[in-house]
Amino acid sequence: MAPKYRLTYFDFTGLAEPIRFLLSYGGLDFEDHRVSKDDWPAFKLTTPLGQMPLLEFEGKVLYQSTAIARYLGHIVGLAGESPLENWEIDSVVDSLTDLRNKVFEYQFEQDEDRKKALRKSFVNEMLPLYYSKFELWALRNGGYLANGKLTWADLYFVAVQEFINLLVGIDLIADKYPNLETVREKVLSLPQIKAWLEKRPELKL
Amino acid sequence: MAPKYRLTYFDFTGLAEPIRFLLSYGGLDFEDHRVSKDDWPAFKLTTPLGQMPLLEFEGKVLYQSTAIARYLGHIVGLAGESPLENWEIDSVVDSLTDLRNKVFEYQFEQDEDRKKALRKSFVNEMLPLYYSKFELWALRNGGYLANGKLTWADLYFVAVQEFINLLVGIDLIADKYPNLETVREKVLSLPQIKAWLEKRPELKL
Repeated sequence: MAPKYRLTYFDFTGLAEPIRFLLSYGGLDFEDHRVSKDDWPAFKLTTPLGQMPLLEFEGKVLYQSTAIARYLGHIVGLAGESPLENWEIDSVVDSLTDLRNKVFEYQFEQDEDRKKALRKSFVNEMLPLYYSKFELWALRNGGYLANGKLTWADLYFVAVQEFINLLVGIDLIADKYPNLETVREKVLSLPQIKAWLEKRPELKL
Repeated sequence: MAPKYRLTYFDFTGLAEPIRFLLSYGGLDFEDHRVSKDDWPAFKLTTPLGQMPLLEFEGKVLYQSTAIARYLGHIVGLAGESPLENWEIDSVVDSLTDLRNKVFEYQFEQDEDRKKALRKSFVNEMLPLYYSKFELWALRNGGYLANGKLTWADLYFVAVQEFINLLVGIDLIADKYPNLETVREKVLSLPQIKAWLEKRPELKL
Protein backbone atom coordinates (compact mmCIF):
# COMPACT_ATOMS: atom_id res chain seq x y z
CA MET A 1 0.00 0.00 0.00
CA ALA A 2 1.28 3.47 -0.85
CA PRO A 3 2.16 5.62 2.17
CA LYS A 4 -0.64 7.93 3.35
CA TYR A 5 1.65 10.97 3.49
CA ARG A 6 3.89 12.47 0.83
CA LEU A 7 6.45 15.05 1.93
CA THR A 8 8.08 17.11 -0.81
CA TYR A 9 11.26 19.14 -0.26
CA PHE A 10 14.83 19.55 -1.45
CA ASP A 11 17.35 16.75 -0.95
CA PHE A 12 18.53 18.05 2.41
CA THR A 13 17.30 18.48 5.98
CA GLY A 14 16.51 22.23 6.22
CA LEU A 15 12.89 23.21 6.74
CA ALA A 16 11.63 19.66 6.19
CA GLU A 17 13.58 17.74 8.82
CA PRO A 18 11.37 18.70 11.80
CA ILE A 19 8.45 17.34 9.75
CA ARG A 20 10.35 14.14 8.90
CA PHE A 21 11.13 13.73 12.63
CA LEU A 22 7.47 14.20 13.57
CA LEU A 23 6.15 11.83 10.91
CA SER A 24 8.72 9.24 12.01
CA TYR A 25 7.94 9.74 15.71
CA GLY A 26 4.25 9.14 15.05
CA GLY A 27 4.91 6.05 12.95
CA LEU A 28 3.19 7.77 10.03
CA ASP A 29 4.39 6.10 6.87
CA PHE A 30 5.50 8.74 4.34
CA GLU A 31 7.05 9.07 0.93
CA ASP A 32 10.13 11.26 1.35
CA HIS A 33 9.94 12.92 -2.06
CA ARG A 34 13.03 15.03 -2.87
CA VAL A 35 13.15 17.60 -5.65
CA SER A 36 16.53 18.28 -7.27
CA LYS A 37 17.78 21.85 -7.56
CA ASP A 38 17.56 21.47 -11.35
CA ASP A 39 13.88 20.51 -11.23
CA TRP A 40 12.94 23.17 -8.66
CA PRO A 41 12.31 26.20 -10.95
CA ALA A 42 9.66 24.32 -12.94
CA PHE A 43 8.18 22.61 -9.89
CA LYS A 44 8.06 25.91 -7.98
CA LEU A 45 5.35 27.20 -10.32
CA THR A 46 3.06 24.34 -9.29
CA THR A 47 3.31 25.03 -5.53
CA PRO A 48 0.80 27.17 -3.60
CA LEU A 49 3.32 29.86 -2.57
CA GLY A 50 6.46 29.09 -4.56
CA GLN A 51 7.79 27.27 -1.50
CA MET A 52 8.55 23.89 -0.03
CA PRO A 53 8.08 21.76 2.03
CA LEU A 54 4.65 20.45 1.11
CA LEU A 55 2.80 17.71 2.95
CA GLU A 56 0.14 15.90 0.95
CA PHE A 57 -2.46 13.45 2.23
CA GLU A 58 -6.09 12.61 1.50
CA GLY A 59 -6.16 15.08 -1.40
CA LYS A 60 -4.93 17.97 0.75
CA VAL A 61 -1.73 19.95 0.21
CA LEU A 62 -0.31 21.55 3.35
CA TYR A 63 2.41 24.24 3.15
CA GLN A 64 4.28 26.52 5.59
CA SER A 65 6.75 24.31 7.45
CA THR A 66 6.07 25.49 11.00
CA ALA A 67 2.31 25.27 10.53
CA ILE A 68 2.76 21.71 9.22
CA ALA A 69 4.95 20.79 12.19
CA ARG A 70 2.37 22.19 14.64
CA TYR A 71 -0.36 20.21 12.88
CA LEU A 72 1.68 17.01 13.17
CA GLY A 73 2.59 17.83 16.77
CA HIS A 74 -1.12 17.60 17.55
CA ILE A 75 -1.67 14.49 15.44
CA VAL A 76 1.18 12.51 17.03
CA GLY A 77 0.35 13.52 20.61
CA LEU A 78 3.21 15.97 21.21
CA ALA A 79 1.17 19.17 21.60
CA GLY A 80 0.30 20.94 24.84
CA GLU A 81 -2.80 20.28 26.86
CA SER A 82 -3.91 23.93 27.14
CA PRO A 83 -3.50 27.17 25.20
CA LEU A 84 -0.81 28.21 27.67
CA GLU A 85 1.13 24.96 27.22
CA ASN A 86 0.87 25.45 23.47
CA TRP A 87 2.16 29.02 23.85
CA GLU A 88 5.19 27.63 25.67
CA ILE A 89 5.92 25.24 22.81
CA ASP A 90 5.32 27.96 20.19
CA SER A 91 7.60 30.43 21.98
CA VAL A 92 10.48 27.95 21.73
CA VAL A 93 9.75 27.20 18.10
CA ASP A 94 9.43 30.87 17.12
CA SER A 95 12.67 31.70 18.93
CA LEU A 96 14.40 28.97 17.00
CA THR A 97 12.96 30.42 13.79
CA ASP A 98 14.41 33.84 14.71
CA LEU A 99 17.78 32.20 15.07
CA ARG A 100 17.53 30.21 11.86
CA ASN A 101 16.46 33.30 9.91
CA LYS A 102 19.54 35.11 11.21
CA VAL A 103 21.77 32.24 10.09
CA PHE A 104 20.12 32.23 6.65
CA GLU A 105 20.65 35.99 6.43
CA TYR A 106 24.41 35.79 6.76
CA GLN A 107 24.76 32.47 5.00
CA PHE A 108 23.13 33.76 1.81
CA GLU A 109 24.77 37.20 1.95
CA GLN A 110 26.91 37.77 -1.18
CA ASP A 111 28.84 40.82 -0.01
CA GLU A 112 31.82 39.52 1.97
CA ASP A 113 32.08 42.50 4.34
CA ARG A 114 28.40 42.38 5.22
CA LYS A 115 28.59 38.63 5.61
CA LYS A 116 31.42 38.99 8.09
CA ALA A 117 29.55 41.65 10.08
CA LEU A 118 26.34 39.60 10.12
CA ARG A 119 28.19 36.50 11.25
CA LYS A 120 29.94 38.46 13.97
CA SER A 121 26.70 39.87 15.33
CA PHE A 122 25.12 36.41 15.17
CA VAL A 123 27.99 34.67 16.98
CA ASN A 124 28.62 37.38 19.57
CA GLU A 125 25.12 38.59 20.33
CA MET A 126 22.14 36.57 19.20
CA LEU A 127 23.63 33.11 19.57
CA PRO A 128 24.73 33.41 23.24
CA LEU A 129 21.53 35.25 24.21
CA TYR A 130 19.24 32.68 22.60
CA TYR A 131 21.21 29.54 23.45
CA SER A 132 21.55 30.57 27.07
CA LYS A 133 17.75 31.00 27.14
CA PHE A 134 17.20 27.60 25.52
CA GLU A 135 19.66 26.16 28.06
CA LEU A 136 17.71 27.75 30.93
CA TRP A 137 14.39 26.42 29.57
CA ALA A 138 15.92 22.94 29.23
CA LEU A 139 17.20 23.14 32.80
CA ARG A 140 13.84 24.27 34.19
CA ASN A 141 11.95 21.62 32.25
CA GLY A 142 14.10 18.66 33.24
CA GLY A 143 15.82 18.12 29.91
CA TYR A 144 12.89 19.16 27.75
CA LEU A 145 12.25 22.61 26.29
CA ALA A 146 8.66 23.15 27.36
CA ASN A 147 6.03 21.94 29.81
CA GLY A 148 8.41 19.58 31.64
CA LYS A 149 7.82 16.79 29.14
CA LEU A 150 8.52 15.71 25.58
CA THR A 151 6.75 18.01 23.08
CA TRP A 152 7.11 18.74 19.38
CA ALA A 153 9.35 21.69 20.39
CA ASP A 154 12.06 19.18 21.38
CA LEU A 155 11.96 17.34 18.05
CA TYR A 156 11.81 20.68 16.22
CA PHE A 157 14.78 22.00 18.18
CA VAL A 158 17.00 18.99 17.55
CA ALA A 159 16.22 18.93 13.82
CA VAL A 160 16.73 22.68 13.32
CA GLN A 161 19.78 22.77 15.55
CA GLU A 162 21.42 20.04 13.48
CA PHE A 163 20.79 22.11 10.34
CA ILE A 164 22.23 25.27 11.92
CA ASN A 165 25.32 23.30 12.97
CA LEU A 166 25.72 22.10 9.40
CA LEU A 167 25.42 25.66 8.06
CA VAL A 168 27.89 27.24 10.49
CA GLY A 169 30.26 24.27 10.40
CA ILE A 170 30.54 23.63 14.15
CA ASP A 171 28.46 21.97 16.86
CA LEU A 172 27.09 24.96 18.77
CA ILE A 173 25.80 22.86 21.66
CA ALA A 174 28.67 20.54 22.47
CA ASP A 175 30.52 21.24 25.76
CA LYS A 176 28.72 24.54 26.29
CA TYR A 177 25.09 23.75 27.00
CA PRO A 178 24.75 20.55 29.03
CA ASN A 179 20.95 20.76 29.31
CA LEU A 180 20.55 21.24 25.57
CA GLU A 181 22.83 18.24 25.15
CA THR A 182 20.34 16.33 27.33
CA VAL A 183 17.43 17.45 25.11
CA ARG A 184 19.35 16.24 22.08
CA GLU A 185 20.19 12.89 23.67
CA LYS A 186 16.58 12.33 24.72
CA VAL A 187 15.26 13.03 21.24
CA LEU A 188 17.95 11.09 19.37
CA SER A 189 17.45 8.06 21.58
CA LEU A 190 13.72 7.78 20.84
CA PRO A 191 13.43 4.46 18.96
CA GLN A 192 11.39 5.97 16.11
CA ILE A 193 13.91 8.82 15.66
CA LYS A 194 16.85 6.41 15.81
CA ALA A 195 15.23 4.35 13.08
CA TRP A 196 14.73 7.47 10.95
CA LEU A 197 18.36 8.58 11.41
CA GLU A 198 19.52 5.15 10.32
CA LYS A 199 17.51 5.11 7.14
CA ARG A 200 17.61 8.76 6.02
CA PRO A 201 19.97 9.87 3.22
CA GLU A 202 23.41 11.19 4.13
CA LEU A 203 23.42 14.82 5.37
CA LYS A 204 24.26 17.45 2.80
CA LEU A 205 23.62 21.10 2.02
CA MET B 1 -9.51 47.42 39.48
CA ALA B 2 -6.29 47.23 37.48
CA PRO B 3 -6.60 45.48 34.11
CA LYS B 4 -5.74 41.78 34.17
CA TYR B 5 -3.46 42.06 31.14
CA ARG B 6 -0.52 44.34 30.51
CA LEU B 7 0.80 44.58 26.94
CA THR B 8 4.21 46.19 26.50
CA TYR B 9 5.49 47.40 23.12
CA PHE B 10 6.71 50.48 21.28
CA ASP B 11 4.36 53.41 20.66
CA PHE B 12 3.19 52.12 17.30
CA THR B 13 1.14 49.27 15.82
CA GLY B 14 3.78 46.87 14.40
CA LEU B 15 4.03 43.45 16.01
CA ALA B 16 1.67 44.36 18.85
CA GLU B 17 -1.43 45.46 16.96
CA PRO B 18 -2.73 41.93 16.21
CA ILE B 19 -2.52 41.32 19.96
CA ARG B 20 -4.32 44.59 20.74
CA PHE B 21 -7.02 43.60 18.25
CA LEU B 22 -7.43 40.17 19.89
CA LEU B 23 -7.52 41.53 23.44
CA SER B 24 -10.10 44.10 22.33
CA TYR B 25 -12.16 41.52 20.44
CA GLY B 26 -12.32 39.32 23.54
CA GLY B 27 -13.27 42.21 25.79
CA LEU B 28 -10.11 41.53 27.82
CA ASP B 29 -9.25 44.70 29.67
CA PHE B 30 -5.58 45.56 29.16
CA GLU B 31 -3.03 48.20 29.99
CA ASP B 32 -1.53 49.34 26.67
CA HIS B 33 1.94 50.08 27.99
CA ARG B 34 4.16 51.84 25.44
CA VAL B 35 7.94 52.10 25.76
CA SER B 36 9.63 55.10 24.17
CA LYS B 37 12.54 54.56 21.80
CA ASP B 38 14.75 56.39 24.34
CA ASP B 39 13.82 53.99 27.13
CA TRP B 40 14.10 50.86 25.00
CA PRO B 41 17.87 50.13 25.30
CA ALA B 42 17.66 49.92 29.11
CA PHE B 43 14.32 48.11 29.10
CA LYS B 44 15.55 45.63 26.49
CA LEU B 45 17.94 44.12 29.02
CA THR B 46 15.03 43.19 31.28
CA THR B 47 13.11 41.28 28.59
CA PRO B 48 13.36 37.49 28.09
CA LEU B 49 14.80 37.68 24.56
CA GLY B 50 15.63 41.34 24.02
CA GLN B 51 12.31 41.70 22.23
CA MET B 52 8.83 43.09 22.50
CA PRO B 53 5.85 42.73 22.60
CA LEU B 54 5.34 41.17 26.03
CA LEU B 55 2.00 40.14 27.46
CA GLU B 56 1.86 39.91 31.25
CA PHE B 57 -0.91 38.43 33.37
CA GLU B 58 -1.18 36.42 36.58
CA GLY B 59 2.57 36.65 37.14
CA LYS B 60 3.38 35.25 33.71
CA VAL B 61 5.34 37.02 30.97
CA LEU B 62 4.52 35.86 27.45
CA TYR B 63 6.78 36.81 24.50
CA GLN B 64 6.98 36.02 20.76
CA SER B 65 4.18 37.98 19.11
CA THR B 66 2.73 35.24 16.92
CA ALA B 67 2.72 32.73 19.77
CA ILE B 68 0.91 35.31 21.94
CA ALA B 69 -1.64 35.95 19.18
CA ARG B 70 -2.28 32.22 18.77
CA TYR B 71 -2.73 31.88 22.54
CA LEU B 72 -5.26 34.73 22.56
CA GLY B 73 -6.97 33.34 19.47
CA HIS B 74 -7.79 30.25 21.55
CA ILE B 75 -8.76 32.26 24.63
CA VAL B 76 -11.20 34.53 22.77
CA GLY B 77 -12.82 31.75 20.72
CA LEU B 78 -11.25 32.52 17.35
CA ALA B 79 -9.17 29.34 16.93
CA GLY B 80 -10.00 26.34 14.76
CA GLU B 81 -11.93 23.31 15.93
CA SER B 82 -9.41 20.71 14.76
CA PRO B 83 -5.67 20.49 14.09
CA LEU B 84 -6.42 20.87 10.37
CA GLU B 85 -8.50 24.01 10.91
CA ASN B 86 -5.68 25.40 13.03
CA TRP B 87 -3.19 24.57 10.28
CA GLU B 88 -5.33 26.61 7.88
CA ILE B 89 -5.21 29.61 10.23
CA ASP B 90 -1.48 29.18 10.84
CA SER B 91 -0.71 28.93 7.13
CA VAL B 92 -2.31 32.35 6.56
CA VAL B 93 -0.51 33.87 9.53
CA ASP B 94 2.89 32.44 8.55
CA SER B 95 2.44 33.64 4.96
CA LEU B 96 1.71 37.10 6.27
CA THR B 97 4.86 36.89 8.39
CA ASP B 98 6.87 36.00 5.28
CA LEU B 99 5.51 39.11 3.64
CA ARG B 100 6.11 41.37 6.63
CA ASN B 101 9.69 40.10 7.00
CA LYS B 102 10.31 40.98 3.36
CA VAL B 103 8.95 44.49 3.90
CA PHE B 104 11.15 44.90 7.00
CA GLU B 105 14.14 43.70 4.99
CA TYR B 106 13.91 46.48 2.42
CA GLN B 107 12.57 49.08 4.81
CA PHE B 108 15.57 48.81 7.12
CA GLU B 109 18.13 48.44 4.33
CA GLN B 110 20.68 51.29 4.47
CA ASP B 111 22.29 50.79 1.08
CA GLU B 112 20.11 52.69 -1.42
CA ASP B 113 20.81 50.41 -4.40
CA ARG B 114 20.03 47.27 -2.43
CA LYS B 115 16.94 48.91 -1.00
CA LYS B 116 15.68 49.70 -4.48
CA ALA B 117 16.33 46.14 -5.69
CA LEU B 118 14.64 44.62 -2.63
CA ARG B 119 11.61 46.88 -3.02
CA LYS B 120 11.37 46.02 -6.69
CA SER B 121 11.43 42.27 -6.04
CA PHE B 122 8.87 42.71 -3.25
CA VAL B 123 6.48 44.81 -5.35
CA ASN B 124 6.85 42.82 -8.58
CA GLU B 125 7.16 39.27 -7.30
CA MET B 126 6.27 38.48 -3.73
CA LEU B 127 3.45 40.98 -3.28
CA PRO B 128 1.32 39.91 -6.28
CA LEU B 129 1.96 36.20 -5.63
CA TYR B 130 1.00 36.40 -1.95
CA TYR B 131 -1.86 38.89 -2.25
CA SER B 132 -3.43 36.97 -5.07
CA LYS B 133 -3.30 33.87 -2.83
CA PHE B 134 -4.81 35.75 0.10
CA GLU B 135 -7.48 37.04 -2.30
CA LEU B 136 -8.23 33.49 -3.45
CA TRP B 137 -8.45 32.23 0.14
CA ALA B 138 -10.80 35.11 1.01
CA LEU B 139 -12.95 34.29 -2.02
CA ARG B 140 -13.13 30.58 -1.17
CA ASN B 141 -13.92 31.29 2.48
CA GLY B 142 -16.73 33.76 1.89
CA GLY B 143 -14.87 36.89 2.95
CA TYR B 144 -12.78 35.25 5.66
CA LEU B 145 -9.25 33.91 5.28
CA ALA B 146 -9.67 30.43 6.76
CA ASN B 147 -12.29 27.84 7.63
CA GLY B 148 -15.17 29.83 6.12
CA LYS B 149 -15.68 31.84 9.30
CA LEU B 150 -14.11 34.54 11.43
CA THR B 151 -10.82 33.37 12.96
CA TRP B 152 -7.82 35.07 14.53
CA ALA B 153 -6.18 34.95 11.08
CA ASP B 154 -8.61 37.66 9.92
CA LEU B 155 -7.82 40.01 12.82
CA TYR B 156 -4.13 39.25 12.38
CA PHE B 157 -4.30 39.96 8.65
CA VAL B 158 -6.08 43.29 9.00
CA ALA B 159 -3.71 44.53 11.72
CA VAL B 160 -0.54 43.45 9.90
CA GLN B 161 -1.83 44.65 6.55
CA GLU B 162 -2.46 48.11 7.98
CA PHE B 163 1.12 48.19 9.24
CA ILE B 164 2.52 47.09 5.87
CA ASN B 165 0.46 49.82 4.17
CA LEU B 166 1.92 52.36 6.57
CA LEU B 167 5.47 51.16 5.85
CA VAL B 168 5.14 51.14 2.07
CA GLY B 169 3.04 54.31 1.98
CA ILE B 170 0.12 53.03 -0.11
CA ASP B 171 -2.97 50.91 0.47
CA LEU B 172 -2.03 47.64 -1.18
CA ILE B 173 -5.54 46.22 -1.03
CA ALA B 174 -7.73 49.06 -2.29
CA ASP B 175 -9.29 48.55 -5.74
CA LYS B 176 -7.22 45.46 -6.45
CA TYR B 177 -8.41 42.74 -4.10
CA PRO B 178 -12.17 42.95 -3.54
CA ASN B 179 -12.32 39.86 -1.32
CA LEU B 180 -9.52 41.13 0.91
CA GLU B 181 -11.42 44.41 1.09
CA THR B 182 -14.36 42.35 2.35
CA VAL B 183 -12.18 40.72 5.02
CA ARG B 184 -11.04 44.15 6.12
CA GLU B 185 -14.59 45.53 6.23
CA LYS B 186 -15.82 42.57 8.24
CA VAL B 187 -13.05 42.92 10.83
CA LEU B 188 -13.19 46.70 11.08
CA SER B 189 -16.96 46.64 11.56
CA LEU B 190 -16.82 44.31 14.57
CA PRO B 191 -18.08 46.48 17.44
CA GLN B 192 -15.15 45.62 19.74
CA ILE B 193 -12.63 46.45 16.98
CA LYS B 194 -14.45 49.68 16.10
CA ALA B 195 -14.27 50.70 19.76
CA TRP B 196 -10.53 49.93 19.83
CA LEU B 197 -9.86 51.95 16.66
CA GLU B 198 -11.68 54.91 18.17
CA LYS B 199 -9.69 54.92 21.37
CA ARG B 200 -6.21 53.88 20.21
CA PRO B 201 -3.46 56.51 19.77
CA GLU B 202 -2.94 58.05 16.34
CA LEU B 203 -1.01 55.82 13.90
CA LYS B 204 2.70 56.52 13.60
CA LEU B 205 5.93 54.76 12.73
